[in-house]
Amino acid sequence: MLRRWEARTGLVLGRGHKPGVQLRAHATAAEFPSLGDDESYRLTVSSREVRLEAQTTWGVLRGLATLEQCLHAGPRGWFLPALAIADRPRFPWRGVLIDVCRHWQPLESLKRQLEAMALAKLNVLHLHLTEDQGFRIESRLYPRLHELGSDGEYFRQEEIRELVRFAADRGIRVVPEFDVPGHTTSWLVGHPELGSAPGPYAIRRHWGVAEAALDPTNEQVYVLLAGFLGEMAEIFPDTCVHIGGDEVKAAHWSGNERIQRFIRQHNLGDNRGLQAYFNQRVSEILGRLGRHMAGWDEVLHPRLSAGTLVQSWRGVAGLDEATKMGCAALLSNGYYLDLWWPAARHYEVDPVPAGTTLTPDQQKLILGGEAAMWTEWTSAERLDGALWPRAAAVAERLWSPREVRDVGRLYARLPGFSARLEDLGLLHEKNRDAMLRRFAGDTAGASTVAALQTVAALFEPVKNYGRNLAQADANQFQPLTGFADFLRVESDEARGFGAAVETLLHDRPKVADIERLIGKMTAWRTAAKALPALLTASGRSHEIIPAAKVLGQACDIGLRALDLLLTRHTGTRAWRQRNLATIDQICRPLGHVELPLERPLKLLVTAASLPRPSGVKARAAWATELLAAARIRGLAAAPVYEQWL
Amino acid sequence: MLRRWEARTGLVLGRGHKPGVQLRAHATAAEFPSLGDDESYRLTVSSREVRLEAQTTWGVLRGLATLEQCLHAGPRGWFLPALAIADRPRFPWRGVLIDVCRHWQPLESLKRQLEAMALAKLNVLHLHLTEDQGFRIESRLYPRLHELGSDGEYFRQEEIRELVRFAADRGIRVVPEFDVPGHTTSWLVGHPELGSAPGPYAIRRHWGVAEAALDPTNEQVYVLLAGFLGEMAEIFPDTCVHIGGDEVKAAHWSGNERIQRFIRQHNLGDNRGLQAYFNQRVSEILGRLGRHMAGWDEVLHPRLSAGTLVQSWRGVAGLDEATKMGCAALLSNGYYLDLWWPAARHYEVDPVPAGTTLTPDQQKLILGGEAAMWTEWTSAERLDGALWPRAAAVAERLWSPREVRDVGRLYARLPGFSARLEDLGLLHEKNRDAMLRRFAGDTAGASTVAALQTVAALFEPVKNYGRNLAQADANQFQPLTGFADFLRVESDEARGFGAAVETLLHDRPKVADIERLIGKMTAWRTAAKALPALLTASGRSHEIIPAAKVLGQACDIGLRALDLLLTRHTGTRAWRQRNLATIDQICRPLGHVELPLERPLKLLVTAASLPRPSGVKARAAWATELLAAARIRGLAAAPVYEQWL
Repeated sequence: MLRRWEARTGLVLGRGHKPGVQLRAHATAAEFPSLGDDESYRLTVSSREVRLEAQTTWGVLRGLATLEQCLHAGPRGWFLPALAIADRPRFPWRGVLIDVCRHWQPLESLKRQLEAMALAKLNVLHLHLTEDQGFRIESRLYPRLHELGSDGEYFRQEEIRELVRFAADRGIRVVPEFDVPGHTTSWLVGHPELGSAPGPYAIRRHWGVAEAALDPTNEQVYVLLAGFLGEMAEIFPDTCVHIGGDEVKAAHWSGNERIQRFIRQHNLGDNRGLQAYFNQRVSEILGRLGRHMAGWDEVLHPRLSAGTLVQSWRGVAGLDEATKMGCAALLSNGYYLDLWWPAARHYEVDPVPAGTTLTPDQQKLILGGEAAMWTEWTSAERLDGALWPRAAAVAERLWSPREVRDVGRLYARLPGFSARLEDLGLLHEKNRDAMLRRFAGDTAGASTVAALQTVAALFEPVKNYGRNLAQADANQFQPLTGFADFLRVESDEARGFGAAVETLLHDRPKVADIERLIGKMTAWRTAAKALPALLTASGRSHEIIPAAKVLGQACDIGLRALDLLLTRHTGTRAWRQRNLATIDQICRPLGHVELPLERPLKLLVTAASLPRPSGVKARAAWATELLAAARIRGLAAAPVYEQWL
Repeated sequence: MLRRWEARTGLVLGRGHKPGVQLRAHATAAEFPSLGDDESYRLTVSSREVRLEAQTTWGVLRGLATLEQCLHAGPRGWFLPALAIADRPRFPWRGVLIDVCRHWQPLESLKRQLEAMALAKLNVLHLHLTEDQGFRIESRLYPRLHELGSDGEYFRQEEIRELVRFAADRGIRVVPEFDVPGHTTSWLVGHPELGSAPGPYAIRRHWGVAEAALDPTNEQVYVLLAGFLGEMAEIFPDTCVHIGGDEVKAAHWSGNERIQRFIRQHNLGDNRGLQAYFNQRVSEILGRLGRHMAGWDEVLHPRLSAGTLVQSWRGVAGLDEATKMGCAALLSNGYYLDLWWPAARHYEVDPVPAGTTLTPDQQKLILGGEAAMWTEWTSAERLDGALWPRAAAVAERLWSPREVRDVGRLYARLPGFSARLEDLGLLHEKNRDAMLRRFAGDTAGASTVAALQTVAALFEPVKNYGRNLAQADANQFQPLTGFADFLRVESDEARGFGAAVETLLHDRPKVADIERLIGKMTAWRTAAKALPALLTASGRSHEIIPAAKVLGQACDIGLRALDLLLTRHTGTRAWRQRNLATIDQICRPLGHVELPLERPLKLLVTAASLPRPSGVKARAAWATELLAAARIRGLAAAPVYEQWL
C-alpha cells in the first residue's frame, strides 16, 4: 500500500522512517480464511497517528482496504481525513463468481480480480471450473477430463495452489464449482461412457444449455467423482464445494429407457427425483472428504441433504424455500453482472430487504450473496472492465448496513474506487482504451480515436442477454473485440447528461445550462456524423455505422428540443408524438449495443412541447406532467430461466 | 499471430479452415539459437497463397515477424499486399541491453520486451544482472550475494530457465552480464572480504559510479567467480558471457598498499594492468566452462585474451582498437536509448558507416550492435515506453542494408509497428495513459485529463542525462511517477508541428495552413494556461507549473508570429531578437523535461520578421536566409565518459 501511495504522491514513504501506521491483530489468523471469521476492525486517524486494530489479521486486511481509500490530495497537499471507524460486515459470505469456462480466464487475470476483491472487502472467489464449453482444471487421476475437454486451457494443480495462497493472503476463500450432472459436455469428451446418451461428445462451442448429462444410474460416475473430488479436496482447502446442479435438461434421461427404469425401481418419481438421488450420492462423497456441498437453487428437493448451501440465481423464492428447509442460502439473483445492468440497479438488490417476508430464523440463514460473471461475452481482455467497478456496488450491499443505499453517493465514490483499482494493476481502463485503439486501426489519427471515444462513451452493451438474440450463431472462437466489447458497461457520459437534464427541468431552465447541453450534444453529433467516414480504412467501420446513425438522430432530436427551450418556443403535439416514437426506436437494443438516453431525450422533447409554467406551484405541476407525458418505459424485467432457454 | 489477427479483424481465422500460410524450414533449429545462425527467409504473398521458406526455424520466425506487419485494412476490407521478399540480416548480433539492477525489471516485464524484440527481428537480450545498486540473480553456492544484495528483487534460477526458453522460442539468445571488478558494491554487501577496501558495504542507492571493486589480488575472488560462473553456465546456455569491466575507478586499488605491491611484484605496470590481469583470470575461468568472454571497451589492453568480444559504449575508437587487435566488436555508442534521443538520431548511427575508416578485415569483425537501456530513470512501469518504439529504429539499422535510411519512411512506419507491439501485449501506450491519469488525480474530470494530455504531448524527458543534474540527490527509492516519467520519449505532436512549419515556410505561406497552425497553438495555449488551476487538487500541480508556463510562452510567441504571417505584417528586428532569445530560454532543459519546439518557433519568428519574397527565385533565397537567421542550435553532443563521471 505504501508503494502505491508513493506512486500516487511522488513521495518516499515508510522506508526506514518512523512508522506512522500502527497495526494490531489480537489473534493471528489461520492459514486459510473460513466462513464466519471475525472481520471487524477499528480504524482511527488523528493528527498524531493512524491506528488499526482488529481481532484477526483478516480484520486488519479489511481495515487496510478502508485506509487505502482514505488518502486524498487537496490544494494544501496530501492528507488522511481524521476519522474513527468501528466496522464489521453485515454478511459473512461476500463473493464473486467467475466462469473460466465459456471464455478462458488465466491465472494472472484471476489474481487481478482478487486484488480488486480485497479492496472491496469481498471474501469469496467462486470459481466455475467445469462447463459444457470447457473443463478447466487438471485431474491427475482422470487426465482425459482436462486433456480432451479444455483445448489446453486449464489450471494446473500447482497454479490452483498458487491462486488459493494468493487469495488467502488477501483474506479471500476460493470455492470451486464442478457443475454436475448437467453442463457436463466437456467431461464426456474424454469419458463418453459416463453420459446418459451414447455420444461421442465434442466440446460445446455455442452458448445456451446442452442436453449432455452424467448418468446417475452408472456407478462408474460415482467412482470418478469420488476420485476427482478427492484430488480437488487436496488443492482447495475450503470446506465448501459447489456442485452446480443447475439447468439439467434431462432430455437424455427421459430418452434412456434404462435410466427411466432405474427411476421406477428406486421410487425416485421423476427426473428431478433422480437428480436429488444423484445429489445425495455426491453429498455423501463430499462428506467423506470433510466437505459441505453447495448448489444452485435447482438442487432444492425434499430429499436435499441437510447442511447443503443453496445459491439462488432464479429469484428470492429460492431463498425462501431453502431457508424453510433449514438450509443456509446465498443470493445471486440480481447480482448477475453479465446482464450489464447499471451499478445502481445491482446496488438496490438486498438479500434481506427491509420488507422481507422471511421469518427472523430464516433471515439468519442468509449468509450473503455473490456477484456472478458468466463469460459467454467476456474474454480475459475484457474481464476487469466487465466486473469493475460495478462489483463494488454488490460488495458494499453485502458489507454495509441495509440503510446505506444512496445511489448518488455510490456514483460519487465509484471513480475514486476505480482509480484505486488501477493502482492495484486492474486493466479495466487500460484494456478498454487499447481495444478501442485496435478497433480504430493503424491508420487512425488522434482525431479519429477521439471521435470514436466520444461515440463509444455514449453506448452500453445491450442488456439482459440481448446479445444472445443479436448474435445467435455465436461461438467460443469468435473474437470479442468489436464495438460492444470495449464499451464501458455503464456510460458515465449518458448518466451525467441524464442528471443534467433532470436538474435543468426540475426548475425553470436556465439559459447557461441549456447552452452547456447544446454544446455537449453538438460535439456528440459532430463525432457521430464524422465517424463512419473516419473509420473507412479501419476494416471495421461497418460495425459502427448503425450506432453512429442513431446517435446522430438522438442529437438532432435533443438539439431541436433544447433550441425550443432556449428560444421559448413550444413544439407541437404532433412533433412530440413523432419524436417520442423515434426515441423509442433509437434507444431500443441495436444489435450488441444500446443508447441509454431514452429518459433524458423524452424529458427534453416533452418539456419543449408543453406550455412553460410561471409560478412555483405551476412549476411543480409541470414536473409531474412532464414525467407523465414523457412515456418513459420502465426498466426491463430481469430475464428468467425460461427466457434464457 | 492468427489469434492477434482475429482480434484486429473480428474474423475467425485458421481454426480448422484450410491453411493459407505455408511454412517451410529446410532444417530444424538447435534447442537454442547461437551466433551466426542462418536467419534468412523468403516470403511470397500472391492471390493464391502465402509461402514462407527458410533454411532454419529461426528464419521462419523472422519471416513471420515480417508477415505479421503485412496485414492491412482498406475501404474494401482486410488484405495482405502481394509481395516477394528475399531477406537476411546485415549483422548477426542485434541486441537490446536491459539493466535490471538500477530499477528492478521482473520476469513478466522482460517477456514483453522479448515479444517486441522478436517482432523487430532482434536476436540478443543482454541482461545486465549485477551492479552497485543490486545483485539480481540467485546464487545457490553463494546465497549471500542475492540475499543481501538485492532487497529480495532478483531472478530465481528457475525464472532464468523460463526466460531463456521463452527467448529461444522467439529465436533470441540471452547473454548475461556480471559486471566485474567495478560496479560490484552489491556483491560486497554479503562478501566484504572480497573487496579492495575494508567495508562494510551497503547496497548503493544513488546513481553514478561507486569506488567499490573486487580485489584482483585475492585468490578467494577467483574461487567465488569460478563457482558462481559455473552455476550461471548451467542456466545460461549461450556461449558468450559478458563480464562488464567498465568504469573501474580504482581508487580502492590505489589506496591499498598490498594491491599496489602486487602490481609491482607481477610487473602489471598500473591499475589498468591489474584489471587486464583480472580479466585474464576470469577469461580462463570462462574458458574452462566452455564460454567466450565479452566486455565493455575498457577491457581493451595489450594483454586482452584473444577471442574476447568488445562492446564499445564510448565511441567508434573502441571498434577500431578492438578489431585491430583481432577481436570481434559490437557498437553501443549511439544506441543508448536512455539518452532519450529521437528515433531518427539512433537510426543514423551505423556500426560500419559508408565512410568508415576500418579496413575490410576490420569490418568483418563488427558483429553488430546493441541498444542499451540503463534504468536509473526507468521503472518497470515505464520500461516498455522507454524502449519502444524507438528500439525498432536500432533494430532496422542492424538488420537492413546500410542504404535503408530514410527518416521520413521510418516515422511513417513506426505507428503501425507500435500498434503491432500493443497487439503483442506491450504496455508502452497503456501504462503511459494510466500514469497520466494517476498523476491527474482522482478528482480530475475528463477535461482535466484532456488538458494534461495536450500539454504532456508536447514535452520530452530532458536528454543526455540532464536529469542527473536536475535531480542530483536522486536515489533508488524515489518513485518515478512524475511528469517526466509518463511523457512519450519523443513527441509526435512536436515533430508533426515542426514538419508543418517547414512545409509552410518552404514556399509562400498559405492562409489555410497558417490558420491550421493557429488552431493547434491556440488549443495548446488554452490547455497550458488552464492546467495549473485544474490540477490544484491533484496533489502534484507544482510539478507541472513550470512546463505549463513555458508552453504558454511558446504559444504566445508562435501565435504572434503566425498572426504576422497571416496579416502580412513584418516583425521588427528587435522583436525577432527578443523572441529568439526567449525561445532559447524556454526550449532549454527545464528540470526533468524539455520543450522540443526550438526550431519551428525560431523559423516562425524569423519568417515573420523578414521581408516576404515575391518571385520563385526570391523565395528560394528567402528559405536560405531564414535558416541562417533563425540561429538554431545544433543537436547537443553525446555525453562522453568524463561528463557522466
